[in-house]
Amino acid sequence: MSRLDRIRRLVAGLDADALLVTFLPDVRWAVGFTGSNGVLVVTRDAAHFVTDGRYAVQARQEVAEAEVHVPGYRLFEHVAEEGLLGDAEAVLVQADHLTVADLERLRLLLPDVKVQPVADLLVEEVAAKSEPEIDAIRAAQAVTDAVFEEILPYVQPGMSELDLAAEIVYQHLKRGCERMAFEPIVASGARAALPHARPTSRTIRPGELVLIDMGGVRDGYASDMTRTVAVGEPDPEARTVYGVVLDAQQAALDVLAAGKTGREIDQAARAVIAAAGYGEAFAHSLGHGIGLQTHEWPRLSSRVEDVLPAGAAVTIEPGVYLPDRFGVRIEDLAVVREGGHENLTASPKTLLVL
Amino acid sequence: MSRLDRIRRLVAGLDADALLVTFLPDVRWAVGFTGSNGVLVVTRDAAHFVTDGRYAVQARQEVAEAEVHVPGYRLFEHVAEEGLLGDAEAVLVQADHLTVADLERLRLLLPDVKVQPVADLLVEEVAAKSEPEIDAIRAAQAVTDAVFEEILPYVQPGMSELDLAAEIVYQHLKRGCERMAFEPIVASGARAALPHARPTSRTIRPGELVLIDMGGVRDGYASDMTRTVAVGEPDPEARTVYGVVLDAQQAALDVLAAGKTGREIDQAARAVIAAAGYGEAFAHSLGHGIGLQTHEWPRLSSRVEDVLPAGAAVTIEPGVYLPDRFGVRIEDLAVVREGGHENLTASPKTLLVL
Repeated sequence: MSRLDRIRRLVAGLDADALLVTFLPDVRWAVGFTGSNGVLVVTRDAAHFVTDGRYAVQARQEVAEAEVHVPGYRLFEHVAEEGLLGDAEAVLVQADHLTVADLERLRLLLPDVKVQPVADLLVEEVAAKSEPEIDAIRAAQAVTDAVFEEILPYVQPGMSELDLAAEIVYQHLKRGCERMAFEPIVASGARAALPHARPTSRTIRPGELVLIDMGGVRDGYASDMTRTVAVGEPDPEARTVYGVVLDAQQAALDVLAAGKTGREIDQAARAVIAAAGYGEAFAHSLGHGIGLQTHEWPRLSSRVEDVLPAGAAVTIEPGVYLPDRFGVRIEDLAVVREGGHENLTASPKTLLVL
Repeated sequence: MSRLDRIRRLVAGLDADALLVTFLPDVRWAVGFTGSNGVLVVTRDAAHFVTDGRYAVQARQEVAEAEVHVPGYRLFEHVAEEGLLGDAEAVLVQADHLTVADLERLRLLLPDVKVQPVADLLVEEVAAKSEPEIDAIRAAQAVTDAVFEEILPYVQPGMSELDLAAEIVYQHLKRGCERMAFEPIVASGARAALPHARPTSRTIRPGELVLIDMGGVRDGYASDMTRTVAVGEPDPEARTVYGVVLDAQQAALDVLAAGKTGREIDQAARAVIAAAGYGEAFAHSLGHGIGLQTHEWPRLSSRVEDVLPAGAAVTIEPGVYLPDRFGVRIEDLAVVREGGHENLTASPKTLLVL
């Protein structure tokens, strides 16, 4: 079934006639447009894509399955004035990807249409990746694997977190990523105990752990990987914690499969960390979906009962953070399969002592 | 007057009792928080900042003027349950920076409060920069100037647009930017006729113009600059067009001053380009405000009558694009002053033939 037909099925199931797709990653998923401005209108029997003059050429090259309109900057006005909704009476909009101001404007422009905001539209459709999409994620993750190998010689005493982050970005771009999926985290020593530390001018010192969390975007799809390495022989407890986190990750991977809930996978890892006495030190959720967005549905968290579909790409990233001492996180990116998973990450996970 | 008091004055002027700031650049402007999740509540006599556990330490370090709360992930719930709005009856929210889903959630949580969405809140307050803010933008623009000088030797036949873009990013990060303000544009030959071209694997050829548009973020503030250079002697019409664009930019800078409208500045540049016969080939607006956001209020456009305040940092970036041939854009970043402007950009603007 084509993606537009999957949208139509969703719309019909919600007793509506059309969907206005305003979230650009979803627009890209549906019709392939890669620019930064546009709205997709999907009705029972038509599809229209409206963008601005900057993308006139590009939209016509990229978008085959919808009629392309280039009216200038006022996209919603064009949808209304040109009657692109046809005879639709009830139109869904993406409640979590439309501002209050835009909804108000739409309702003024479409006084005779029932404009109905719904949250989490399309998340399940987008999560269940096709094999070409999985290939794109695999290629992005392969870049990150290659970058990890490339930068290891730089991870040594005297190197600053910021300079290492600059090398990480440079190597991703040189190897075919169009941009980073997020700003790399390079956190050394006690800074690694802050799960979302930003790189600083701090230099790496002997005996420290260095946590590196990085990902690039290649052909639109994101990669994501974390490794924690030691620069010289670390504190014995750091070795212990590393082993616990690695065991926790393996326990989660062992149960990862289509049909399981996010909570079940999270719980598998969390139980290992709790049994080792570090439960309080694992204060974030286990992972998240990834694809055209770096963070997307499904979340793997103790609070989420959503069932994982086959084809979903997810991160598995347990961590233990001991304030003012050190932190360890190990993150792989894997695809959920029937009866198991496929790990797209190749970088070694035994503790590297550099 | 403190920024929180400027917010209070704005709120009172709109007959409301409080403002919920949900747009993170505005939160940073108001109280200095640099993380990726949080909401600021400003009432007549108090200010509360609510964020999640990842930012517990950071928020307390950064935010001095508001009471910091770290309840976990459900920030709006905390605002409601802890009564952080005090006795406020009418609360403003940012209509253009709040999703429909979040507004619905807020209204369910605050059934006795009038939650009132208003667009463009704070844009004038944020636009009129303080001198320390202008210093931060000056420092960011100085990095971009230095990067331009550094990369010029790489701009030569055989270099690919993507590899040049990677050097641009690397040099910004090595020189103290925490990230790029946007993905650099490197467009050679006919690709420079696409105003928003993305870098490709295309290599630069002799006789071509190369358009480079780049900016970094340093201490939160963005830079932005475009230069167009020639690799070997270009087409004579390219030289002519370059002169027209440079004259147009100078005409706009000549009239740039506090109290003028965006339309007046745009018109000064547009008239020069039109008089030279290239009016149709300048299809975008002249510039935009810049600061904690790369694009912010005010726009400098033929459709905008907003008056420029002293202290606003704006780009002045006329361009002429001849499809399938070449494109020229020249962009400086300047601060609007009483009676004139201060140009923060130092890179040369005579046509460089490399």
